[in-house]
Amino acid sequence: MTPEKRKLIEESFNRSETLKFYNASLIESKTGFISIKIPKQSLMTRKHGMFNGATISSLVDVSSGYAAVSNYEDDCYVVTVELKVNFLNAALGDNLLSKSYVVKGGKKICVIRTEIFTVNDDLTNEKHVATSLVTMMRIK
Amino acid sequence: MTPEKRKLIEESFNRSETLKFYNASLIESKTGFISIKIPKQSLMTRKHGMFNGATISSLVDVSSGYAAVSNYEDDCYVVTVELKVNFLNAALGDNLLSKSYVVKGGKKICVIRTEIFTVNDDLTNEKHVATSLVTMMRIK
Amino acid sequence: MTPEKRKLIEESFNRSETLKFYNASLIESKTGFISIKIPKQSLMTRKHGMFNGATISSLVDVSSGYAAVSNYEDDCYVVTVELKVNFLNAALGDNLLSKSYVVKGGKKICVIRTEIFTVNDDLTNEKHVATSLVTMMRIK
Amino acid sequence: MTPEKRKLIEESFNRSETLKFYNASLIESKTGFISIKIPKQSLMTRKHGMFNGATISSLVDVSSGYAAVSNYEDDCYVVTVELKVNFLNAALGDNLLSKSYVVKGGKKICVIRTEIFTVNDDLTNEKHVATSLVTMMRIK
Repeated sequence: MTPEKRKLIEESFNRSETLKFYNASLIESKTGFISIKIPKQSLMTRKHGMFNGATISSLVDVSSGYAAVSNYEDDCYVVTVELKVNFLNAALGDNLLSKSYVVKGGKKICVIRTEIFTVNDDLTNEKHVATSLVTMMRIK
Repeated sequence: MTPEKRKLIEESFNRSETLKFYNASLIESKTGFISIKIPKQSLMTRKHGMFNGATISSLVDVSSGYAAVSNYEDDCYVVTVELKVNFLNAALGDNLLSKSYVVKGGKKICVIRTEIFTVNDDLTNEKHVATSLVTMMRIK
Repeated sequence: MTPEKRKLIEESFNRSETLKFYNASLIESKTGFISIKIPKQSLMTRKHGMFNGATISSLVDVSSGYAAVSNYEDDCYVVTVELKVNFLNAALGDNLLSKSYVVKGGKKICVIRTEIFTVNDDLTNEKHVATSLVTMMRIK
Repeated sequence: MTPEKRKLIEESFNRSETLKFYNASLIESKTGFISIKIPKQSLMTRKHGMFNGATISSLVDVSSGYAAVSNYEDDCYVVTVELKVNFLNAALGDNLLSKSYVVKGGKKICVIRTEIFTVNDDLTNEKHVATSLVTMMRIK
């Protein structure tokens, strides 16, 4: 990934009200891959303090979007065509961590697989809590 | 729906930190159907002030969950197995409104179709912005 | 639907090797809606003679594709971006019947909801066996 | 995988009318993983001789089902709750090959990721044509 492209992604990330609200951190960005961490807040939880499906789905959407953007050279814009999330295990942990992989980056359509984990603050103790497939469309 | 069941749903709704944060209103609840409204806040939006996919997905998840619960007589608990959302149109409007229909309420598995609209405060000017299918599992 | 458009759909339907093999009948076609029936054959079944998921998924794909095509005026061509099927009930019956509705027909992307039923030969005794959402892309 | 379990899977595979019709071969089976190959036939194709979505979806369903079964020790039976397939590239090639991975094998629910490739007869020249997520339910 060029330094210019990385800068575009970081600036977009830092401008986002949603990501600020989530206290989200951009853990890694390279061409076709994005990882984002968000720490637990009480309104993200349901019974027993586990992350709710709403927060997990939100992270899937945001992380997949940045992965799609990372895949193209220019300063493009993507919209979510559809997303599908399977919840695998109770999301008990202090943080959510996404890992978004571009499976196919076509001219118009980009398909991304995003895996969601719970992790400790130092990114250890990774537990797989959701898997997903997301379709994005590139808008020039 | 029995008055006891409706009371259980309303109490659960009012306890939820996520729904309080969203200023969500329960518009309608009957057996196998739930409708929820959430007014726009700045952190729910992306470019041009339209609702982001994260908020729409969150509403799909929450509304589908209550629809599943509404379908059973007793005080049951459901978890999301998976959800899939198609985004149809730019979600420009002052509120999001969900309409969740139970398609199949089996003993273990409940399938819900949730449609998301933007609406004015008085529920007029409905525009279809997302459609979805959600699978919930009932936990006794 | 114009007679010219209907003729294009019927000719395409009659050319298809897959549909011939299935002995499929085009039950109804109008703008944004298609219904197709396929009679049971032994290789379409699993235990207890119910239709297998493979046949149901195939019908979802084909029927959704024709619905997408029906939505546009010209002689267009569509490809499936993705499909998602929920299986609701054991598909016991003599025929499968699809009903495909265009939810959103955009310039590039078309979203279709396809419901699958089992029916008798005369289309009576309809039982809902699957629901689905499908994304198609139009190729000019 | 125990020899008894492998035998159960192979016997089930050899009994299936659908798989016989497809001339399907079981390429590999181990605990939590299944790979199946099917050679092209004319009725599996659409324009330009590429495999149609129906055949790809069928292979996703069947391969995911065997992967789910492979994950459990006993002689269990699974039904498809839902499947979702993203089509990535035109499926031009002489065979389809599936690789199904169990992502989460719970007591009731099993989530499988199935990747579909085109390959030559000797399994070389692998091209990724579809990715999918499938939810199965175990029936005792």
